Amino acid sequence: MNFADRLLAAIEEKKSHVVVGLDPDFASLPPELQAEVGPKPGRPEMVAAYDRFLRAILEDLSDVAVAAKLQLAFFEALGEQGYRLYLSLVARASALGYLVISDAKRGDIGNTSAAYAKAHLDVAGADAMTVNAYFGSDGMEPFLQQALENEKGLFVLVKTSNPGSSEIQDLLLADGQPLYRAVASLVDGWGREARGASGLSAVGAVVGGTHPAQARELRAALPHTPFLIPGYGSQGASAEDLAGLFGAEGTSAVVNSARAILYAYKKRALPWRDAARREAEEMRDALWRVARGGAA
Amino acid sequence: MNFADRLLAAIEEKKSHVVVGLDPDFASLPPELQAEVGPKPGRPEMVAAYDRFLRAILEDLSDVAVAAKLQLAFFEALGEQGYRLYLSLVARASALGYLVISDAKRGDIGNTSAAYAKAHLDVAGADAMTVNAYFGSDGMEPFLQQALENEKGLFVLVKTSNPGSSEIQDLLLADGQPLYRAVASLVDGWGREARGASGLSAVGAVVGGTHPAQARELRAALPHTPFLIPGYGSQGASAEDLAGLFGAEGTSAVVNSARAILYAYKKRALPWRDAARREAEEMRDALWRVARGGAA
Repeated sequence: MNFADRLLAAIEEKKSHVVVGLDPDFASLPPELQAEVGPKPGRPEMVAAYDRFLRAILEDLSDVAVAAKLQLAFFEALGEQGYRLYLSLVARASALGYLVISDAKRGDIGNTSAAYAKAHLDVAGADAMTVNAYFGSDGMEPFLQQALENEKGLFVLVKTSNPGSSEIQDLLLADGQPLYRAVASLVDGWGREARGASGLSAVGAVVGGTHPAQARELRAALPHTPFLIPGYGSQGASAEDLAGLFGAEGTSAVVNSARAILYAYKKRALPWRDAARREAEEMRDALWRVARGGAA
Repeated sequence: MNFADRLLAAIEEKKSHVVVGLDPDFASLPPELQAEVGPKPGRPEMVAAYDRFLRAILEDLSDVAVAAKLQLAFFEALGEQGYRLYLSLVARASALGYLVISDAKRGDIGNTSAAYAKAHLDVAGADAMTVNAYFGSDGMEPFLQQALENEKGLFVLVKTSNPGSSEIQDLLLADGQPLYRAVASLVDGWGREARGASGLSAVGAVVGGTHPAQARELRAALPHTPFLIPGYGSQGASAEDLAGLFGAEGTSAVVNSARAILYAYKKRALPWRDAARREAEEMRDALWRVARGGAA
């Protein structure tokens, strides 16, 4: 089934737009997990702690989150053991019924892009991956081909959630539009052949929830493009900020939260597993109301 | 020592601007190496064949090439064993006296960029890495910090070698300049604090040799920025195309060739190790003449 249709079915089934972001950070792990490995853990001990922690999170949230997004950087920073953990968590998340998004932000010339698409959508087995389109259409082509042939999804960086995203992405072009709008038009074109039964495309866009006006402008410009929205929670976007980004059916966007879910125990008087679940449930409910046109 | 000074010293010592690109491709391996592993190799056999092949290339070219550039995509496409091979080849190339460039083209928001910088410049131990700046200055900051603190280098994508690079990178801005010039100005600013004794910065730029006019325009705009030039050889750029890109001292650029060196046996009646060395030597000599102002 087309990735966009799978995403839609997951949203309807779980009544959720939540993507749980797996961004492991040792200093933020629950104290009891840190204590188990001692004060100066080596890389194998850190990997083991992340493994325990993230598997528990995945098990606890499988009915609350539609997708799990693995941030490659944090796994690569642990060397080959970290890379192995990435691969094993993709498999575990898939087995638990998540759609799995490799947040890799890769992009290169053709034959190299083909290797990246293979690495994450085939060898690792993710359902979708994030892509940086700076190389243009010929660099995107192998990702699109992999997505079309194997019913995978892509989320192309259009307008990112960081404050400095304006510096390059908002540069005004000679035609009066900002750069992110030109990238958005390309994404629309790339996705045309990849539309599923719902009309949504398997080629989505990364649109930061921290820039609500620009996100709504992009929503209007890209009616067939599912959004992957980072920036919720610890980066500052609220459910209200995301009003209008879910499309007429309320199913055109999913929203990532990583640290606010993973380390929810810091702000709640609950054991860490309960805190993470409570945080994800509240996020799910707030987004569901907003996506269906209600107040958050 | 500042990365730019190390690069300069290597160019002067080896009298070479050659970067050997490690882009392993099973179907292109010398037939005798393919035969050793049989017709339908699994991933472990492919990794073993790449390991033998690339170690031999590194041993044979250590006096001809100033740097080795490892294309991460081809290693990731082999899963965790491929990632392990990447790490072991970085170490081997360093031990053989190469400057090692991780061609990772990473870029993300701040804390994620910090993890990528750590993954490749610290954990993997490369001397430099390639970076995609679409996120802007706050996404670049952790890479710059890692480079400054640990005397590492960066090469930021400015104008890439692929034909389709024009689509986004050449978009005309409201001020009349193409996008790649705006990115170039940012690179110049990011590199200001990282200049070495020679005046060259540890923050370099990726500038494709396949667009000679634009590359020369960038050379003039970025006098303190070392260039990493892809596109030589199998992508079509010749030594003549690169005239004018090496700066007044002839030392402001290095040039990557991967497939044309690795698989030189296909075009030369020589054993594969001899063919690769001959190709790299001819490239070195042709670039040296052009860089010193002579004809190729």
